[in-house]
Amino acid sequence: MFSYEDIVNSRDRIKDKVYMTPLEKSIYLSDKDTNCYFKLESLQTVRSFKIRGVMSKLTSLTDEEKEKGVVAVSSGNHAIALSYACSVMGIKNPLVFVPKNTPKTKIDKINYFGASVEIVGNTFDDAYEYAMAHINDNDMVYVDAFSKDEVVYSGQGTIGIEIFEQNPNIDTVLVPIGGGSLITGISVAAKHINPNVKIVGLQTKSCPAMVKALEDDVFYETYPSEESVCEALVGGVGEIAYKMGKECIDEIIEVDEEFIKKGIAHMIKKEKIVAEPSSAICVGAILQNPDIIKGKNSVLVISGGNIDEELMINILNEY
Amino acid sequence: MFSYEDIVNSRDRIKDKVYMTPLEKSIYLSDKDTNCYFKLESLQTVRSFKIRGVMSKLTSLTDEEKEKGVVAVSSGNHAIALSYACSVMGIKNPLVFVPKNTPKTKIDKINYFGASVEIVGNTFDDAYEYAMAHINDNDMVYVDAFSKDEVVYSGQGTIGIEIFEQNPNIDTVLVPIGGGSLITGISVAAKHINPNVKIVGLQTKSCPAMVKALEDDVFYETYPSEESVCEALVGGVGEIAYKMGKECIDEIIEVDEEFIKKGIAHMIKKEKIVAEPSSAICVGAILQNPDIIKGKNSVLVISGGNIDEELMINILNEY
Repeated sequence: MFSYEDIVNSRDRIKDKVYMTPLEKSIYLSDKDTNCYFKLESLQTVRSFKIRGVMSKLTSLTDEEKEKGVVAVSSGNHAIALSYACSVMGIKNPLVFVPKNTPKTKIDKINYFGASVEIVGNTFDDAYEYAMAHINDNDMVYVDAFSKDEVVYSGQGTIGIEIFEQNPNIDTVLVPIGGGSLITGISVAAKHINPNVKIVGLQTKSCPAMVKALEDDVFYETYPSEESVCEALVGGVGEIAYKMGKECIDEIIEVDEEFIKKGIAHMIKKEKIVAEPSSAICVGAILQNPDIIKGKNSVLVISGGNIDEELMINILNEY
Repeated sequence: MFSYEDIVNSRDRIKDKVYMTPLEKSIYLSDKDTNCYFKLESLQTVRSFKIRGVMSKLTSLTDEEKEKGVVAVSSGNHAIALSYACSVMGIKNPLVFVPKNTPKTKIDKINYFGASVEIVGNTFDDAYEYAMAHINDNDMVYVDAFSKDEVVYSGQGTIGIEIFEQNPNIDTVLVPIGGGSLITGISVAAKHINPNVKIVGLQTKSCPAMVKALEDDVFYETYPSEESVCEALVGGVGEIAYKMGKECIDEIIEVDEEFIKKGIAHMIKKEKIVAEPSSAICVGAILQNPDIIKGKNSVLVISGGNIDEELMINILNEY
């Protein structure tokens, strides 16, 4: 597991390499008794908090490790973050494994900053297995997205430190849960700084993997999902996130897909912020049940801004 | 007129009250030889650079002046910025005059942060005359938006200092021209720091007021406009902007409304940034003629992010 000190160390390493994103008050979600803020990781470099975990990992490597080459398995924000981070840090030939169904637009984005992409297997799990074999055979370094690397979790936790520097009076933090590295990292930092802070996780009703994992006391490394607009929130949970879940997460709210879409529309139309579905779930949770933040000083962690064009336009027309 | 030192002083006064907004490289508008950056004032507090001029003015007032009360004439970003700035600085009872045709949604936004709104006259000019009489009769302080207050111009100029701190290699800056306080302020700062920098102004073809003013050597305080999506860029020019125009502006490009709309769509769909039409004109100019920035290290000043919901959706559907 990892501690507040690990997060502080991670922050020292990455603070000149990532933005301290704004903590911005929402006019529309606040009222006389309620102060609701956005932590806008949607404005982070490459539009996602994932750069924090990646930078935390890369800055922890020895020169020898960097020479060996780094590898990730992801077709989303984690892969783009790795590609970008390596270009900035001068780490040569990063390699990303993606499954066969990955859209070309995503591969182009990963390629853009210089990473090579290898397309293998039919599913994420297939690609992961292939990647692990490749790493073993070639003595390379794996950059984990959310599963079991404490250094990555510590990177995501740097958001928790920033939130309290920006507003020491925060009492409630809402965080989307996919693998769970984000909420776990933020919680370790936040609860160290303010032991009374309430950490609320959000999952889509289509895939309540963490809800069930903590209920059933089972580490669901994979989990079935119904249709969801939140591609980053479906699937199983991370190992560290699962193990630390009961101490880190005070409550998990399951949010309807309908409300997630309303949240996306609210963010763009009213707040003028492009948030990805997996982040707009925070707003969806409040539209579903405004009492969650009533009378509180709350933060919604808007974790990323990469949303598919067509999906965005369809939602703006419908909601 | 005003100097670089005035801008430095203004910056010292406002730097803890406004964001240092990101200077972010565009993946889509850059290539091997071309580095194109956005200066994202669309992410500034209250989503507009106008807060800089307002804060510059308010922080220059004596306590006695603050007690007298401050007044603006505007139904847009300047008024919202004044209302917000007064709430933050504890300046009581700011007053904003708007003409009769002002939409309720805009009045609500101005009211939100505490300013009173008085609706008078049929046009901006009518409201302005009424406001001046009111200021005289009641011995109040006028907060100019763009016309002839050097302290306001100096505030806008702080963007120029930030750009070169964020990237000393910038050689070209594209700035929208409405009244002209933004381009004038930025130019004074930029040309002091790098005398070889090229400052390119952008106006909608529907209302090329500054183009004609400099051509005709006439101070067009008002100017007729054809239909435009850029409400902040139509009308006459500011007095200081006109007088300093020839030394501050190297070139003005007139941009088609069609390309401005394409620029709005590009920003949201590709860059994931909500820019208002009067800012997306920068992108429109490049879509109209990519050669402007070819081989350069250029900055597009994305001055604000307040766009009408309906207009945005119509444009996203069409472009």
